[in-house]
Amino acid sequence: MTVILDGKLLAEKITAKIRAEILKNSLKPKLAVIKVGDNPASLIYVRNKQKKALELGIESVVIELPSNVSEENLLEQIYILNEDTEINAILVQLPLPEHINKQRVIEAIEPIKDVDGFTSYNFGRLALGYQPYSFPCTPKGIIRLLDEYNISLEGKKAVVIGRSNIVGKPLSILMQRRNATVIMAHSKTVNLKEHTLSADIVVSAAGHPYLITEDMINKGCIIVDVGINRIDNKLIGDIDFNTVKEKASYITPVPGGIGPMTIAMLMENTLELYKLQKSFEL
Amino acid sequence: MTVILDGKLLAEKITAKIRAEILKNSLKPKLAVIKVGDNPASLIYVRNKQKKALELGIESVVIELPSNVSEENLLEQIYILNEDTEINAILVQLPLPEHINKQRVIEAIEPIKDVDGFTSYNFGRLALGYQPYSFPCTPKGIIRLLDEYNISLEGKKAVVIGRSNIVGKPLSILMQRRNATVIMAHSKTVNLKEHTLSADIVVSAAGHPYLITEDMINKGCIIVDVGINRIDNKLIGDIDFNTVKEKASYITPVPGGIGPMTIAMLMENTLELYKLQKSFEL
Repeated sequence: MTVILDGKLLAEKITAKIRAEILKNSLKPKLAVIKVGDNPASLIYVRNKQKKALELGIESVVIELPSNVSEENLLEQIYILNEDTEINAILVQLPLPEHINKQRVIEAIEPIKDVDGFTSYNFGRLALGYQPYSFPCTPKGIIRLLDEYNISLEGKKAVVIGRSNIVGKPLSILMQRRNATVIMAHSKTVNLKEHTLSADIVVSAAGHPYLITEDMINKGCIIVDVGINRIDNKLIGDIDFNTVKEKASYITPVPGGIGPMTIAMLMENTLELYKLQKSFEL
Repeated sequence: MTVILDGKLLAEKITAKIRAEILKNSLKPKLAVIKVGDNPASLIYVRNKQKKALELGIESVVIELPSNVSEENLLEQIYILNEDTEINAILVQLPLPEHINKQRVIEAIEPIKDVDGFTSYNFGRLALGYQPYSFPCTPKGIIRLLDEYNISLEGKKAVVIGRSNIVGKPLSILMQRRNATVIMAHSKTVNLKEHTLSADIVVSAAGHPYLITEDMINKGCIIVDVGINRIDNKLIGDIDFNTVKEKASYITPVPGGIGPMTIAMLMENTLELYKLQKSFEL
């Protein structure tokens, strides 16, 4: 029997707890989201984050900037948010327009308000094996979902496909920390199938529909699908779900798998940063 | 024919160039090394670094602290070196005594003087794929040695054994950046041989003599030995050199492989930090 890793359900459990904690203790966490331009996917993501924050009693503010905003003006916005003691968490919605240096912008965020964990300081802490102020939301959500189903990574052979700073790289490091042997695969990997066929866990964060098919998977494999692909107005992952499901021991669906976990982790990170900042107040 | 990757020779070429540049332009790079206690291996390492620096015209100062020094006093030393405009590079010789929080100490180094690249900021830059002020010396030396022999990593399957912050982790990231598919193996890896047998490149940074034997290696494999083990007063690596050599296409010896490259990279990093700091002077 294949178990569906229900990210939606776990995300609801986590966010219900966050909501209760905020209500009970009259907490006032506040998240600022910077959105540049009007990429339609970004619009949806930002709206979903706002909606979830509102549900949980997290105040959110969206700073909308035109796609031709100068890097200087964007940085200025971040400095203002850094200084604003009511803002606990700052998120820059990616992608940014070409003319803007993404890393310079992210780097401008105060590490203690860096809710995505993408500043060099936080990412370095993660990579070195120490506690950052925030762990990146998607890898954190994946580890939490595996933990919920008591799936141990110890000694397992895990293939992580995709080497982005948002998912693949930090997840590889976190899985290695849990004693998995991690194979970091990507678009230049020769013979991907050779790796996936002998894997205990396959995580795909490549953004290619039907990248992983049934013939590439060993019976009993654990499958995590981080892909978000829009095909004919339908959302599908990187995994050919219907056929792969038959062989997997555990598998995440798309939608309803890692997506809701990512948003739940964003909310959790916001609350954690709020509490941390409060603990430092004089 | 197996090619011996001659790290000693390349290190000499690199350091001769450094020496010439310093002489010709009357440069005054200065390296500070902090040594705590009297670990015999550390004593040798520090002495070798001092000796090499002296040879190249790099001024070096060693701050020797007793093994019972308080963390506070050690941090105070680093603050003094951070403020000292004549010091361009700061290195804390590891290991530190148990009672000292290693990461807190390393983190105290100004990133622009962090010659090992071990602060969160520099390590984060490396992990995110950006240019840190310094790359860690050993992985940098490995990449440079492979480059010298025109060994491309593109599409290759590389097994990196060991997940230290000094070698395994940063090297895995750097090799991935060169489009290798990297398998991050370590003490909890099940069936290491299965991975090494199908690898194009094996790097061992585990510190276990005779960890890699001839039967674990595919014919034509490229072998990099980062192990430093003292057996009967003799220095040997992790690789059973004499038997593995017969099967390898390229192999680094111990000594004379990665060791001299590490020291050469330390000298190069010191000079680069000096030049960078000069360029910022008013």
